[in-house]
Amino acid sequence: MKEKIIRLLEEKKLGELREELQRINPADLAILLEDLDEKERLLVYRLLPKELAADTFSFMDSDMQEGLINGFTDRELREVLDQTFVDDTVDMIEEMPANVISRILRSADAETREAINQILNYPKDSAGSIMTIEYVKLSRYLSVADAISRIRRVGMDKETIYTCYVTEYRKLIGLVTVKDLLLAEDDQLVGDIMETNVIMVHTHDDKEDVAKQMSKYDFMAMPVVDDENRLVGIVTFDDAIDVLQDETTEDFSKLAAVAPNEDSYFKTSVLKHARSRIGWLLVLMLSATVSGAVLSYYEAAFQAVPLLVSFIPMLMGIGGNCGSQTSTLVIRGLALDEIHIRDFFRIIWKEFRIALIVSLALAVVNGLRIQLTYHDLTISLVVAFSMIGIVILGKLVGGMLPIIAKSLKLDPALMATPLITTILDTCSILIYFGIATHMLSLA
Amino acid sequence: MKEKIIRLLEEKKLGELREELQRINPADLAILLEDLDEKERLLVYRLLPKELAADTFSFMDSDMQEGLINGFTDRELREVLDQTFVDDTVDMIEEMPANVISRILRSADAETREAINQILNYPKDSAGSIMTIEYVKLSRYLSVADAISRIRRVGMDKETIYTCYVTEYRKLIGLVTVKDLLLAEDDQLVGDIMETNVIMVHTHDDKEDVAKQMSKYDFMAMPVVDDENRLVGIVTFDDAIDVLQDETTEDFSKLAAVAPNEDSYFKTSVLKHARSRIGWLLVLMLSATVSGAVLSYYEAAFQAVPLLVSFIPMLMGIGGNCGSQTSTLVIRGLALDEIHIRDFFRIIWKEFRIALIVSLALAVVNGLRIQLTYHDLTISLVVAFSMIGIVILGKLVGGMLPIIAKSLKLDPALMATPLITTILDTCSILIYFGIATHMLSLA
Repeated sequence: MKEKIIRLLEEKKLGELREELQRINPADLAILLEDLDEKERLLVYRLLPKELAADTFSFMDSDMQEGLINGFTDRELREVLDQTFVDDTVDMIEEMPANVISRILRSADAETREAINQILNYPKDSAGSIMTIEYVKLSRYLSVADAISRIRRVGMDKETIYTCYVTEYRKLIGLVTVKDLLLAEDDQLVGDIMETNVIMVHTHDDKEDVAKQMSKYDFMAMPVVDDENRLVGIVTFDDAIDVLQDETTEDFSKLAAVAPNEDSYFKTSVLKHARSRIGWLLVLMLSATVSGAVLSYYEAAFQAVPLLVSFIPMLMGIGGNCGSQTSTLVIRGLALDEIHIRDFFRIIWKEFRIALIVSLALAVVNGLRIQLTYHDLTISLVVAFSMIGIVILGKLVGGMLPIIAKSLKLDPALMATPLITTILDTCSILIYFGIATHMLSLA
Repeated sequence: MKEKIIRLLEEKKLGELREELQRINPADLAILLEDLDEKERLLVYRLLPKELAADTFSFMDSDMQEGLINGFTDRELREVLDQTFVDDTVDMIEEMPANVISRILRSADAETREAINQILNYPKDSAGSIMTIEYVKLSRYLSVADAISRIRRVGMDKETIYTCYVTEYRKLIGLVTVKDLLLAEDDQLVGDIMETNVIMVHTHDDKEDVAKQMSKYDFMAMPVVDDENRLVGIVTFDDAIDVLQDETTEDFSKLAAVAPNEDSYFKTSVLKHARSRIGWLLVLMLSATVSGAVLSYYEAAFQAVPLLVSFIPMLMGIGGNCGSQTSTLVIRGLALDEIHIRDFFRIIWKEFRIALIVSLALAVVNGLRIQLTYHDLTISLVVAFSMIGIVILGKLVGGMLPIIAKSLKLDPALMATPLITTILDTCSILIYFGIATHMLSLA
């Protein structure tokens, strides 16, 4: 496909090219345009029919959009904005430099400009900031037939026509889906068939909560109201999916101890990558000096029995891994609303029993292996007992910290793998050398 | 809300209760029913109007569904199955014991039974296994008005009516959305307004790929065809979101070195939790014996300079953390299709430059701290040089392994944090003691 497009472009067979382009889905077209240089891109873009061009435009990343806008005539820019839904325009504006933004705002009509400014005014993570104003409003006194013909008249410019909102004095009083309308009799009234138990969100609600609610209820759109319950917009399901995906990426970043970043891997510069990683590494490095200091304190012990040193990596590793197994599961459970703060003691009790089983199994395997390798029963027992203590501690700390973070209104994912590992490193060494000095009478 | 329901239930005010229940969204009703015992639950369930009852049923987890089915009369079971879409019935069946399954299949009508059996026959992770057969089919020769009235006639039993599929000799030749139909003129033909460049998937395609495509194209439904391009079903967006969420949870599990598990944290028994965690811990524990053995090899070195031991935790920690920072970002990038196998060398080059900046900063901070604490320039330099080597190695290994895994058709997430950490532990010790023995002339 791509080869054909490029060949037609080189041979300047523009008529054929135009036909070929119309067979491609806008999402794929946007990807295809990435591989062209700016001049070719503008040329190809201008070959697209108006609606396909606007759809393709909304699938592009912001760099490509900016490049095209710089090449657009004022009229072309106006045409794109006319065809683009306001929420997509706002997304675009948030990534553009000031001169492009003012050109966009100049080109938009007055109503759109007002809506853009209003949406830009909502806090960054609020429902208001991701909503669109293009929805279908109905009155409760319309007949079903009239409602359907109203949709047919105004539907073209609305992002979703499938859920229509019934308002009275601008307040949201109900909703009907197009399915409800189509399956009702022509002479029924909208007010009689509408759903009146409407689930809605407020402009200032957190956008992640809104997205989670939409996923819970399987909604395609969620109405957004202001403080006086007046309908001001809707959030559509494609934006909700984006929010959920961004949130997951953020959780992954925190698990990896990297400062979250909205851009993709390759879009982020080397310097920015380095900056986003160096902070946590410094924290972890300096806190690791604590476990180093603890180790120096036991210098006499490992000078007397050097073999003790060779089990340090294993015991520290097991402690950290046990902790991160539990904390990751708990963090994910919290994110999916399967685990709540009130489950604190349930989790501790559950993790304690899991840790007992796991630690006994690991201690037996490991004790046997050391006994068979070194034929030193005391050392084998020291390592086995340390293993039990470290695993139990790891599981309990890993279960508790994310919930404590959540109850302090901190992000549980901050308590992720690397931080827990560092805490457990120090504890593991204390447990290990505590048991060792005691059993080997080294103190 | 919940308190009121329980009070009405206790006071046996069933009429009032029934009214109250109808105000609740089915997803919330399912959660509310969780808190009742089986007898009350059946009582409350029987108060619900038929359609609300079926909707609520589809939001319940499988244990609750099984309990209710056991209390149902045959007629009640048949009513629920009539109202439930085939894909939801299949989801349900997959979790039920054999006797409940055969009761369900006995109660379903012949056509539904056949469809259930067909869907159950598709491989577990295929598009066929999550599709539904309830979609609207149209002919290209219908007028728009006739198409709309056909939808109004058959729409009630279809999961989505908003995308209608145009078939000829059972082959999929196009699609129209209800929006297209509503915005067209009554006397236009479906064949003239339909979209003919249809993106479709095959029954055996991987369900995760299907979900990702739907999210890429912002589709609400994706048509599924068999090997002869005959339309056999559609995948709806609610199922696609579930697939994406399950995949993410699976990636989290792998990052935590826990065997993936489809049930939630509390639904999984202590024994099952222990089993799913112990495998990886054993592997990690035994592979950590390698780093232990390497350490014993350098026994003479740390007996001569015991201070060397206290930097082991920090250097091992930094190596592991650097590796997991990079591997997590790369794994996430691969999952989101932002990174591909062909980017191998681009990633190595990028990570190398990031590692240079990061390692220099860490080495300077750490070298200074050690120099100020211990006033031993050689030791400070040993640790600083080791830091540079370990950070660079960590970033490169963390960047390469997930991509190598992917190109070997293994799951990149298997190369996650704990495995990389273990590999890097050994390498870090080798680098550290290699540099130390050389610079301190201990060999």
